Amino acid sequence: MGVRAGVVVTGTEVLTGRVADRNGPWLADQLRRVGVDIADIVVVGDRPEDLRDALAFLAGLDLIITTGGLGPTADDLTAEVVGQFQGRASALDVQLEVQIGGIVERLMVGRGWKTDSDATAAATRKQAMVPEGASVLSPVGTAPGLVVPPAVGRAGPPVLVLPGPPRELQGMWAAALADPLVAAALSGREELRQDTMRLWSTPESELSAALRRHSHELAGLEITTCLSDGELEVVTRYAPAAQPAYERLTAALTGDFGPALYSPDGRTVDRIVAQLLLERSWTIATTESCTAGLLAGRLTEQAGSSAYLLGGLVTYSNLAKHELAGVPLELIDRVGAVSEEVAEAMASGARWRLGADVGVGITGVAGPDGGTADKPVGLVHLYVVAPGQSLSRAVNLPGSRSDVRQRTVAIAMHMIRSVLSS
Amino acid sequence: MGVRAGVVVTGTEVLTGRVADRNGPWLADQLRRVGVDIADIVVVGDRPEDLRDALAFLAGLDLIITTGGLGPTADDLTAEVVGQFQGRASALDVQLEVQIGGIVERLMVGRGWKTDSDATAAATRKQAMVPEGASVLSPVGTAPGLVVPPAVGRAGPPVLVLPGPPRELQGMWAAALADPLVAAALSGREELRQDTMRLWSTPESELSAALRRHSHELAGLEITTCLSDGELEVVTRYAPAAQPAYERLTAALTGDFGPALYSPDGRTVDRIVAQLLLERSWTIATTESCTAGLLAGRLTEQAGSSAYLLGGLVTYSNLAKHELAGVPLELIDRVGAVSEEVAEAMASGARWRLGADVGVGITGVAGPDGGTADKPVGLVHLYVVAPGQSLSRAVNLPGSRSDVRQRTVAIAMHMIRSVLSS
Repeated sequence: MGVRAGVVVTGTEVLTGRVADRNGPWLADQLRRVGVDIADIVVVGDRPEDLRDALAFLAGLDLIITTGGLGPTADDLTAEVVGQFQGRASALDVQLEVQIGGIVERLMVGRGWKTDSDATAAATRKQAMVPEGASVLSPVGTAPGLVVPPAVGRAGPPVLVLPGPPRELQGMWAAALADPLVAAALSGREELRQDTMRLWSTPESELSAALRRHSHELAGLEITTCLSDGELEVVTRYAPAAQPAYERLTAALTGDFGPALYSPDGRTVDRIVAQLLLERSWTIATTESCTAGLLAGRLTEQAGSSAYLLGGLVTYSNLAKHELAGVPLELIDRVGAVSEEVAEAMASGARWRLGADVGVGITGVAGPDGGTADKPVGLVHLYVVAPGQSLSRAVNLPGSRSDVRQRTVAIAMHMIRSVLSS
Repeated sequence: MGVRAGVVVTGTEVLTGRVADRNGPWLADQLRRVGVDIADIVVVGDRPEDLRDALAFLAGLDLIITTGGLGPTADDLTAEVVGQFQGRASALDVQLEVQIGGIVERLMVGRGWKTDSDATAAATRKQAMVPEGASVLSPVGTAPGLVVPPAVGRAGPPVLVLPGPPRELQGMWAAALADPLVAAALSGREELRQDTMRLWSTPESELSAALRRHSHELAGLEITTCLSDGELEVVTRYAPAAQPAYERLTAALTGDFGPALYSPDGRTVDRIVAQLLLERSWTIATTESCTAGLLAGRLTEQAGSSAYLLGGLVTYSNLAKHELAGVPLELIDRVGAVSEEVAEAMASGARWRLGADVGVGITGVAGPDGGTADKPVGLVHLYVVAPGQSLSRAVNLPGSRSDVRQRTVAIAMHMIRSVLSS
């Protein structure tokens, strides 16, 4: 089984879904890179007894990591509860109090906030309470991290206590790994490789059947498949000795699925589109109606995207489609705003208006209202035009307004990829 | 403590962060609405022993809900493992097999996929295996849900087994609550109210101090605070008898924080902006550079947003700023693309070009490259102009490219709110 860790994510705001947890997955990925497997992520609210139960549940693993609950408010209880769990009383660390005090003051002044000295002092003191015998990881924000070993004579793994804000947690990670107690807990780990392939437009049952057909030559691979945003992801974890088996898997799926296996090396469609645009020195522009800027937003997630994205038009109203993208109002009257013809005119309009090589047009009914028998909620027309080629698609997408918009953006990305690859 | 449930989210793709879990938070919210508290969400990979351990960890609660692991692939193990955990062998449900077979065939034909009958039949058979004595919840996608009670003579709560795709899980929820075993497990629940207030531009330590000052009049309230996207959320859960204490809390925070408590009733800034635009019958348009459509995308998340968003301009290149939004090239040359003057010209350009009442301009350095000593990564200028008023802001935001873009959109939303409220 190798070395395994467990993560406890604390916070009623995460448990009740007001805030999505970004730390558990990030930690799982970082741990995997250093050869440590993650067994569980447990999300608990701000109740000390639930946190204690979660720590006890994970006490059979090699390391426990907690995130969150280190802030200045009264519901931030992690340091104290972990100290108690490990049998260690907490005390004020005066040097740490001074350090945090300095950080907080600079922060408040930088934001132009008045510093209520009583409130600030109380908050600082609370964040400087440290279980005896724990090591302190310097704050990235205002909260320090902690490594808390079990008290002498007690069994169990050390608990690595990290702050909740992802930027602070990530900024502390290198120091956490370098801590001697953490390093000792993770010693004996073995490299575990992880590789990904991506398929587009393939039913999960086909993939499943292919994996069954080839299973005799795939020993030593832990293969998981996942359908996300219309894509099938095949993620495989394996020890270095199973590398030949992984190469057999790649060859088998390439043979079975051809171009539907659009990413044998795991690159995302975002990355592939960016690379293809850069290779061809082509620029791109968009005209979006129902997705209203989300495709332009996605095309610019990559750093350096200003090399190819010139700009985009969000044409929610018919008049905007006409005035910005040059779609003839007569055409909209005749075939309707949600139509292949208008999607094509929007794509051409983006290209013409921005002077781009590639133009994309998207028009659809995102819902929940606005559907008709002819043009139901979920109907979307997409059009991609590039020098010497074009691609048109109409889809009927299930789900909520947000689902329809997100899935449409994914389809557009794959249409752009397809046009650029041909 | 009341009636409490636990959720097990299965799937290596969730555990390793490739897919964000949307089901745990959704279930927590739904359970809260019916007066059931959630104790833990445990995320485990596709390993049967880890799933068994998680079920055992939660066996002291009143109900366990699992999500995911019901698909056709070999790593989908939930139904079988839950059956074993409850002491019940699984058998093929022939009627269910026929039902799933029909669904799958319609799906494949609708997408124009060839139906490999062997693969499909095997997948269907797997999904129709049911633990003896379990009730079946009709599939929304292809996977049925299950309610699996412990075998006669065994202790522990029933396990409600739901599919992983959020649309399928949510579509099955009403039937799950109506199931007699689930209803019995949740009987005796008591109403628990949850109310939210939102503050903008307030340090967490100030809020914490205010809550301490007023703590003597707030008995019976479970208050959690959370900093998210620059906003402070105050979420309070309480039994109906503590309603007067909640009203004291609202009055106290209103008195202490004034207009910084921009949402005493919990409405999001998105909802407030939408309502203010509708009340005034004002339209809005955007010109975005570093956020590249994300603000327009956010303004259109609300259903019915076509009543106020006319459209937007994504002007990544300087030429696009000039040609689309009418920003003078001479101005860009003189003060730089990232400047208050250009943000103002972009806001005015959006208003003029789209014929809107309100215009928003955003220009900044999202990073990771492109920063200078004068204009570092994270510097963003925002400008909102409306009839008779305008608002300008420059901010220096920490974090990654994605953090900077997301935070900028949040600031823009609050600036729009501020202009519309005045």
